[in-house]
Amino acid sequence: MKAAIITIGTEILIGSILNSNSKFLSERLSEFGIHVSYHVSVRDDHDELLDQLKIMNEKVDIIFLCGGLGPTADDITKQVLAEFLNKNLVLDDYQYNKLKKRFEANKRIMTENNLNQVYVIESSNILDNNWGIAPGEYIEQGNKKYFLLPGPPKEFEPMVDTYLKDILKNNNKIIIKSLNIAGLGESRVEDEIRKLKLEEPNISINTFAKFYDTEVKIIAEGEDFSYLNKKVKSIIDILYATFTNNLYAEDNVNLSKTLINKLLEKNLTISFAESMTGGLMTSMITKEAGASNVIKNSIIAYSNIAKIKMLGVNKDTINQYGAVSEQTAYEMAKGLKNINLSDINVSITGEAGPVKSEKDIGTVYVCYYYNDDNYEIKEYFFRGNRNEIQQRTADSIMLHLIFNL
Amino acid sequence: MKAAIITIGTEILIGSILNSNSKFLSERLSEFGIHVSYHVSVRDDHDELLDQLKIMNEKVDIIFLCGGLGPTADDITKQVLAEFLNKNLVLDDYQYNKLKKRFEANKRIMTENNLNQVYVIESSNILDNNWGIAPGEYIEQGNKKYFLLPGPPKEFEPMVDTYLKDILKNNNKIIIKSLNIAGLGESRVEDEIRKLKLEEPNISINTFAKFYDTEVKIIAEGEDFSYLNKKVKSIIDILYATFTNNLYAEDNVNLSKTLINKLLEKNLTISFAESMTGGLMTSMITKEAGASNVIKNSIIAYSNIAKIKMLGVNKDTINQYGAVSEQTAYEMAKGLKNINLSDINVSITGEAGPVKSEKDIGTVYVCYYYNDDNYEIKEYFFRGNRNEIQQRTADSIMLHLIFNL
Repeated sequence: MKAAIITIGTEILIGSILNSNSKFLSERLSEFGIHVSYHVSVRDDHDELLDQLKIMNEKVDIIFLCGGLGPTADDITKQVLAEFLNKNLVLDDYQYNKLKKRFEANKRIMTENNLNQVYVIESSNILDNNWGIAPGEYIEQGNKKYFLLPGPPKEFEPMVDTYLKDILKNNNKIIIKSLNIAGLGESRVEDEIRKLKLEEPNISINTFAKFYDTEVKIIAEGEDFSYLNKKVKSIIDILYATFTNNLYAEDNVNLSKTLINKLLEKNLTISFAESMTGGLMTSMITKEAGASNVIKNSIIAYSNIAKIKMLGVNKDTINQYGAVSEQTAYEMAKGLKNINLSDINVSITGEAGPVKSEKDIGTVYVCYYYNDDNYEIKEYFFRGNRNEIQQRTADSIMLHLIFNL
Repeated sequence: MKAAIITIGTEILIGSILNSNSKFLSERLSEFGIHVSYHVSVRDDHDELLDQLKIMNEKVDIIFLCGGLGPTADDITKQVLAEFLNKNLVLDDYQYNKLKKRFEANKRIMTENNLNQVYVIESSNILDNNWGIAPGEYIEQGNKKYFLLPGPPKEFEPMVDTYLKDILKNNNKIIIKSLNIAGLGESRVEDEIRKLKLEEPNISINTFAKFYDTEVKIIAEGEDFSYLNKKVKSIIDILYATFTNNLYAEDNVNLSKTLINKLLEKNLTISFAESMTGGLMTSMITKEAGASNVIKNSIIAYSNIAKIKMLGVNKDTINQYGAVSEQTAYEMAKGLKNINLSDINVSITGEAGPVKSEKDIGTVYVCYYYNDDNYEIKEYFFRGNRNEIQQRTADSIMLHLIFNL
């Protein structure tokens, strides 16, 4: 089955927003074994949309129309599809009452405009929108399928996840498995995987760059479930063996969450003394719910005086070896340990640039301090701009902790 | 002039990457006064690409083909355009020698595949690629213009910025001005601006959501420069008057950078005692180059014990009023002040969720502490998920400081 995704909205064509809906929907449709052939974006323009509908209708089996379902005059998607299918728009009682109650609850007056949103194409299947107002719709005509979906990603994404799977499922079994790799670029991961020649007609392996992680997604589709299952398992084993120090999680648990889980499992708490990461390290962890079980405190010692005054680093150490040095990293971690709030105390000092001071830009020293008899100091070197160096430092520290706790 | 942007690459159609090139190029073209009518994405498929080229050629004056210029078998964009224009591909000597030198410098063998990248469409204008290998091309035929541009954004974006303006400029004068607004959602900003009815045939005002900020971009195009200039100035004045406490900068200087500039201007340093923001506040500032001139240290006191031990908060205060309270915020800020490293000491305590503890999720107390005779405690309430509440807190604190220092 071939599909086209048509997004409607002038804001996309003037570059005001990224077309994240097409990406999101494409990823899901690939999981259902549907071949997305085209993405098309048009302005809120009746003729151009109708024209594209006609063109795409000749080429694919399923057309998704995304956006343009709101109450204003430039929301025309539903009207154009009705015209194309030669159907009427009718008031949907359930949607009308739902909207009326919503306005009453908010003590607001419902205008004629708002009513537009509760007209639907006759004999369509309504996809109730629990995340916003405009309902989605699904229509079969001839041997084709048509979907109307609201544009705001906060409505679009849960609607896709709630309704599409049941409507589009086929008789094939599908196994989807994601593996998460950090510390290597996406293109490097893709190259390595391609060299392994793991793909088969029924099994695709694609890489998705997610901020600084790479998601490797294995999709196996076919009738023989136990064969697929065995194959996917063997691919996973090979990938674990290939990316020994970088494959850190499955099914899109991120680095921070994986580290939190590891700390919880070992019943450990952690603190950071951050210089060049300036709070990034701790904030990545505190962004996750449940962080308070593993992190009690951190110190951001961004200046020499803060390192001396808050962590007890010896002034002479900084003078002799520099703020970016093994020795300073060690004393920072030891100072943090002396505050005595956590089991593991990690210090970070480095040169993120853009202006080089004492050491080359990209040089980082990290001290992992457990106790006086058990600590390690690691030197790292990262390329990139200031923020990339900060981010890669934080990612590498998390990876190290995940693999070594 | 109407334009279509065709992006070529299977990775877009399976949802592996976001189509950021179309957004980037659309924003630039809008600045040049070019009307982008269509975005189309196709797979690395000869027939489908050729078909779309034919369709779009009927509809627009300029076609941009982005991606598919690499050395592998599935890179077909240049071949398809040559076929469509009925032209030959010829070896470009300059590009050939450049590539040869590159391989020699890297001590690598040049394969037949790599040679593909230095064949160009006969009589095209070469757009030299200083950020990668595959050159871009620009061709005029009939009254139409065709562009070939490489897909990787690190090559695509500088090529767009280097070459397109000169090729596409017209005789009109264009004035572009950006204003930056924080603390209000993009849709709210857009609504307010629409109500002001500031647009004229020659002047467009669009809003761009940038993470949590909104960029308002004014584009004025016409022959009478001094008229346009006067109009744009008056629009800017009206927007400043409308968004008094939210319009914080011009030309895309972000919140953190604006705060750093303000602190530098006033010769002040700042420290944070962060509880619920967990390092986010400080890390937003330390992401910027030059942060070390204004920030010396911060304390992340994520637990009660850290608040007591590191900031000297009275245990009874927490017991009596709660960790999320005016009183605790005050003692946190005063404790930070006592470390005596900065002029301004700001404490943040709040409830980011997802699990409600003592106060409603979204409740935040911030103490801005200058000295014993000069401090203020503010209570905020933010809606959203955990990360939105954390981010809005950090943004609001920066806005408050920018407008009140």
